[in-house]
Amino acid sequence: MVLVEKDFKDRIVGAQERIKPFAHKTPVLSSQTLNQISSTELYFKCENFQKVGAFKFRGACNAVMGLDDKAAEKGVATHSSGNHAQALALAAKMRNIPAYIVMPRNAPAVKKAAVLGYGAEVIECNPTLKDREETLEKVVERTNAHVVHPYNDERIISGQATTALELIKEVEDLDCLIAPVGGGGLLSGTALSANLFGRNIKVFGAEPEGASDAHKSFNEGHIVPSIQPNTIADGLLTSLGDKTFPIIESLVTDILLVNDDEIRSSMHLIWERMKIIVEPSAAVPLAAVLKNQHIFKNLKTGVILSGGNLDLKQWKF
Amino acid sequence: MVLVEKDFKDRIVGAQERIKPFAHKTPVLSSQTLNQISSTELYFKCENFQKVGAFKFRGACNAVMGLDDKAAEKGVATHSSGNHAQALALAAKMRNIPAYIVMPRNAPAVKKAAVLGYGAEVIECNPTLKDREETLEKVVERTNAHVVHPYNDERIISGQATTALELIKEVEDLDCLIAPVGGGGLLSGTALSANLFGRNIKVFGAEPEGASDAHKSFNEGHIVPSIQPNTIADGLLTSLGDKTFPIIESLVTDILLVNDDEIRSSMHLIWERMKIIVEPSAAVPLAAVLKNQHIFKNLKTGVILSGGNLDLKQWKF
Repeated sequence: MVLVEKDFKDRIVGAQERIKPFAHKTPVLSSQTLNQISSTELYFKCENFQKVGAFKFRGACNAVMGLDDKAAEKGVATHSSGNHAQALALAAKMRNIPAYIVMPRNAPAVKKAAVLGYGAEVIECNPTLKDREETLEKVVERTNAHVVHPYNDERIISGQATTALELIKEVEDLDCLIAPVGGGGLLSGTALSANLFGRNIKVFGAEPEGASDAHKSFNEGHIVPSIQPNTIADGLLTSLGDKTFPIIESLVTDILLVNDDEIRSSMHLIWERMKIIVEPSAAVPLAAVLKNQHIFKNLKTGVILSGGNLDLKQWKF
Repeated sequence: MVLVEKDFKDRIVGAQERIKPFAHKTPVLSSQTLNQISSTELYFKCENFQKVGAFKFRGACNAVMGLDDKAAEKGVATHSSGNHAQALALAAKMRNIPAYIVMPRNAPAVKKAAVLGYGAEVIECNPTLKDREETLEKVVERTNAHVVHPYNDERIISGQATTALELIKEVEDLDCLIAPVGGGGLLSGTALSANLFGRNIKVFGAEPEGASDAHKSFNEGHIVPSIQPNTIADGLLTSLGDKTFPIIESLVTDILLVNDDEIRSSMHLIWERMKIIVEPSAAVPLAAVLKNQHIFKNLKTGVILSGGNLDLKQWKF
């Protein structure tokens, strides 16, 4: 890992410089009530206040702004129905280049509207991974656009790593960091920043029981794909990639599982006590902290609130 | 007004010093999307992040911390079923003195629990103003506690005025300030701070159509009581008092009315776009800004988000 880490140190610092004019340096909030409830000292990094409402903008912005002019002029492309789609569309808009987003036909209208609102072209496909990938290939054949994967890409990992880097610089002497894990872009970036810029910070992943592929992969020592995941944390359904898994395997202390009731209850606590809106995926780390007081008791823990995008009209506690 | 204002300048600066160790200096947030929608430049002062989740803590804290030791040791008392009850209970707890809160028997259990959680004694009464006042009188006879009115009190007005004072110091050259109006503590304090510490800042009140007594009072030149108010903005049901009305009458430019649909829609915008939780009363000013673009267009407007307390389990957009 030594060489890889040296390489990532420069990449992450580079990403921080590159996205600075475009991304928010998000606030760190704390809550006395939540500290009492959890018997720990929690510092919440509020990526729900990031552009497009999620940390995903950091990685997408880093990838888009890092392209040379020749590659950039053909535009960027991806398949995504989530926050990465909006993130890539906005970053492309800021660079004034085209973005082509392949989205499943059954994606919520509100998500399509958001991507269209950032000026991207939406290409519909059938809701299978195979059709998403084939449709994306055709788009690239037609446009020569540059594909930006949502997580399995070193530029994305480095961009997401700036979240933890900011938190480490702002809150001194953190003992732990905890982030949700889906494809692993945020968690691997968090682990890299803790390792490269922090002092003895332990990093934990938090994952829903209904999509526990990262937990299995971590314990079995190889990537176990996510098959038919089922959880309210709809940002955490994907499998780890060959770029994110090795970093997580070597730098993360443990991956903690929580069920949907625990996620819902932590989400309610964050809304009610902190007066901020987070999406279910963002509440997974607090749920893991509350469930594992033997690990976190009396420690200074940084919690990454990954995003705040959900359809409020559909939500009911 | 000249003498009164001079007097208030010292009172407000004194309140700011007095509450500093206890109250949060709340953040000011802005949103590009809301600026675009409103065609104005909005600066939101986030009192939903204040202690007890509302600006009310400022006034209550100022009153409690300003008492001399002899008066303080008997404790403080009030009748309230809202944010003032929690605010007074917490301020008393911080000073380590008793608080006696008269609450109507039908007040939500969650509100009683919050007040009890701050260590106050809750005394139940029938849900009429008459019984609330009589019960409070009996409590005072028994305890000799010092009564702190929720708004019609210069210490409360001065405490609430620190909200606008902070906003004016943080955001230069504001053209307008807008605050919700119920009993008028926040609005009169806002008007005083704009007048005493700002330069040519126009102040507007925002009020629900279903509780338009302040609008009527302002236009008729005398206090018109609030009779059977009916609005989702449940923090704005009370009538102006003889301390708040004269300040509002002389220093406020206009009081703007909005209906419940407009309040609900602004509240949804704030939750969705800013990712923060505000209660219905706190969304009334944004609704008024959106309804009156002829007034606010292209101006730099400070909006006071008064609080974020509501029962999330009861709420549905």
